[in-house]
Amino acid sequence: MNAPTPTWPDAIATDPRRMAWMQGSPPPEDKLVRFADTGHLRFPGSRWAFSHWREFAPTAAVSRGDGPTGALVQAPRDLDAVPLVTLQGEPMTWAQALLATYYDGVVVLHRGQVVYERYFGEGAPRREHILFSVTKSFVGTLAAMLVHDGVLDPDSPARDIVPELAASAHGDATVRQVMDMRIGVDYTEDYTDPAAAIWAFSRAGGLLPARADDAGPRSFAAYMAGTRKLGEHGAAFSYKTINTQVLSWLMERATGRRLADLLAERLWAPIGAECDASISVDSTGAAFGGGGLSATVRDLARFGEMLRNQGRHGDRQVVPAAVVADIAGGGEREAFAAAPMFRATLPGWSYRSMWWVSSAEEGAFMARGIHGQSLYVHPASGVVIARTASHPAASNVYNDPVTLPAFRAITQALWG
Amino acid sequence: MNAPTPTWPDAIATDPRRMAWMQGSPPPEDKLVRFADTGHLRFPGSRWAFSHWREFAPTAAVSRGDGPTGALVQAPRDLDAVPLVTLQGEPMTWAQALLATYYDGVVVLHRGQVVYERYFGEGAPRREHILFSVTKSFVGTLAAMLVHDGVLDPDSPARDIVPELAASAHGDATVRQVMDMRIGVDYTEDYTDPAAAIWAFSRAGGLLPARADDAGPRSFAAYMAGTRKLGEHGAAFSYKTINTQVLSWLMERATGRRLADLLAERLWAPIGAECDASISVDSTGAAFGGGGLSATVRDLARFGEMLRNQGRHGDRQVVPAAVVADIAGGGEREAFAAAPMFRATLPGWSYRSMWWVSSAEEGAFMARGIHGQSLYVHPASGVVIARTASHPAASNVYNDPVTLPAFRAITQALWG
Repeated sequence: MNAPTPTWPDAIATDPRRMAWMQGSPPPEDKLVRFADTGHLRFPGSRWAFSHWREFAPTAAVSRGDGPTGALVQAPRDLDAVPLVTLQGEPMTWAQALLATYYDGVVVLHRGQVVYERYFGEGAPRREHILFSVTKSFVGTLAAMLVHDGVLDPDSPARDIVPELAASAHGDATVRQVMDMRIGVDYTEDYTDPAAAIWAFSRAGGLLPARADDAGPRSFAAYMAGTRKLGEHGAAFSYKTINTQVLSWLMERATGRRLADLLAERLWAPIGAECDASISVDSTGAAFGGGGLSATVRDLARFGEMLRNQGRHGDRQVVPAAVVADIAGGGEREAFAAAPMFRATLPGWSYRSMWWVSSAEEGAFMARGIHGQSLYVHPASGVVIARTASHPAASNVYNDPVTLPAFRAITQALWG
Repeated sequence: MNAPTPTWPDAIATDPRRMAWMQGSPPPEDKLVRFADTGHLRFPGSRWAFSHWREFAPTAAVSRGDGPTGALVQAPRDLDAVPLVTLQGEPMTWAQALLATYYDGVVVLHRGQVVYERYFGEGAPRREHILFSVTKSFVGTLAAMLVHDGVLDPDSPARDIVPELAASAHGDATVRQVMDMRIGVDYTEDYTDPAAAIWAFSRAGGLLPARADDAGPRSFAAYMAGTRKLGEHGAAFSYKTINTQVLSWLMERATGRRLADLLAERLWAPIGAECDASISVDSTGAAFGGGGLSATVRDLARFGEMLRNQGRHGDRQVVPAAVVADIAGGGEREAFAAAPMFRATLPGWSYRSMWWVSSAEEGAFMARGIHGQSLYVHPASGVVIARTASHPAASNVYNDPVTLPAFRAITQALWG
């Protein structure tokens, strides 16, 4: 909380429509968002790119199938003026907090009804938005379902499921340790460090342009097979995207199915999603389970609503109630507290099956992606908040101090 | 007709499911379809790739919007045994013709009802398939609509709309000459010739992997601006994909809209498409109007049905009836007959607004893409045939001798 907050041009000034990003045929050079120079990740062009992710790299469809769309009944409430105080002590309103966090879309559900829905910039009801690490919570939910079904053994070492991992850091990690990110691996994920392992991982998966001199692995699988262990498994929580990618591999091998199809059949179609989603794929067709899902904010809210409802959508038990309860119950708080990065903003939280679980007092669980992607589920109040965003910083450290009080304020305003 | 027909393994033997293309996580090396080595274009892996086109390169969504899906009433007819004789004199049935042309999906409508619908291999009702040059007929229809609306002047030289084209082959070509592919440009499109211009054009548009030593243009626009004139405009029909790409550019500049959005708003949503479609985009976000649309065969059939119905879908006039009549009336038959390539298989045909129009006796118009993509509209009988396919040859010379008699036989069988 004591680090000086960097300043960026604000949300209004960087509205991608106002700035005319990607307007014109072709757009002028200074309004062009290019994959080749990683412009799709660079603020403020990123504000256009996050709503057009599939235009930059290959994606697979996550089909909604041909079932009925889950109804979202509109019951609008005027929440714009709901007051809150940021973790830095600054008073603001909900509407101001949305702008302060560079939101692109937001849907608030209360007991299943849409009480608030807004879009900004390139955000639109039927336009998908990259969810980044919110993807992980979909993958973790699916993994917990497979464990529940007996398809994945939580105690099995990864190498027994994917022998190619035998010599890697994850070889002797159990499925459960992978699911809870308690893995000792020589891999760093500081997005502000150009030498961090996440970048080589991303290049391997085709999420960034290849370098001419790049002799590294050319697929997620090749990267994952080549990691080295550092420290022990089962100790502290350590947030690393590669763990979700390993989990995706374990799930695909255990089921013989592609991740995009598992997501479609087990989650996307059963929740009555309105639109197909998409997921980034590497040069071998492997989906980026660690952060490649794009979806509409409405469908993200539907996913949260199903979980709030103990895993049910309508008459259908989509996710076993025991799986939802296990996620909502959280992981080991000591293991989480041992991770220094989140001590200030997330005291009393834990991590379970790729979900962020709040203190018991708060009673929420959350999917979180860089640049502000969020799904906040608060069963006691019946509130679900889905938000997509294009915050300038690839770190929730600058985002949480506004986002968390804002979500809590809305929850309190609706509760009762 | 006298060229010896090459032989390929047949459709059953190259069923991508049976061959296990892209099965496994990751797929074994010999079952991997890779963009980097143009595996997505190489038979028989192409049979998987054509149903998963968006997994190989960037695409933009063509949204169906949130309107109701156009109903497709099922009224199945047993057409499998309908007999036909190929242009080589070989008798076969409709079912055999579908296999002989390596179909992936087919929908036959008669007076708006689905009388026949089948899928093969990776084909599926809700899975989009690359349409290749069938895309051109969507773009041409849209251009004709813009001409009808007064947004595009058919007599305007291209350079007056897009000044960047002034020094190119197309600079002094009129919009109408571009729409009818009567352009003199130093550009070749023989898919069997590795030195053909279509490959450099494709690399510029990101449809093929860049070469390490490639110093050529890096976008469609850069390529189009750099062509040289060869011969005269307004003379013979000469089928070249670049003409549709130029037309797309003219349309985007004239409307200030992206092609994907024009397609969505003017055609895709109004016909009640069931699924979003997608279209390949280059490094500047420009859609590949020349051949990048992927859609389901059902939605392709819906497009044809709207045209069969004089441009109406339900109560809505989607395409002006005059535009449909102009297309159905065809182009100059002399200009078409001057193109030697189609003399044997398409006698008496012509080309109008990016549509292939049959002899007046046959009374059909057709959208055609390599490897067997087809939309056949026959207003007098009320028949519309949409077919996706993954024929081994990138030339309809090997496909038409079976496809055309097959479509005619089905039309005759249903007529009356």
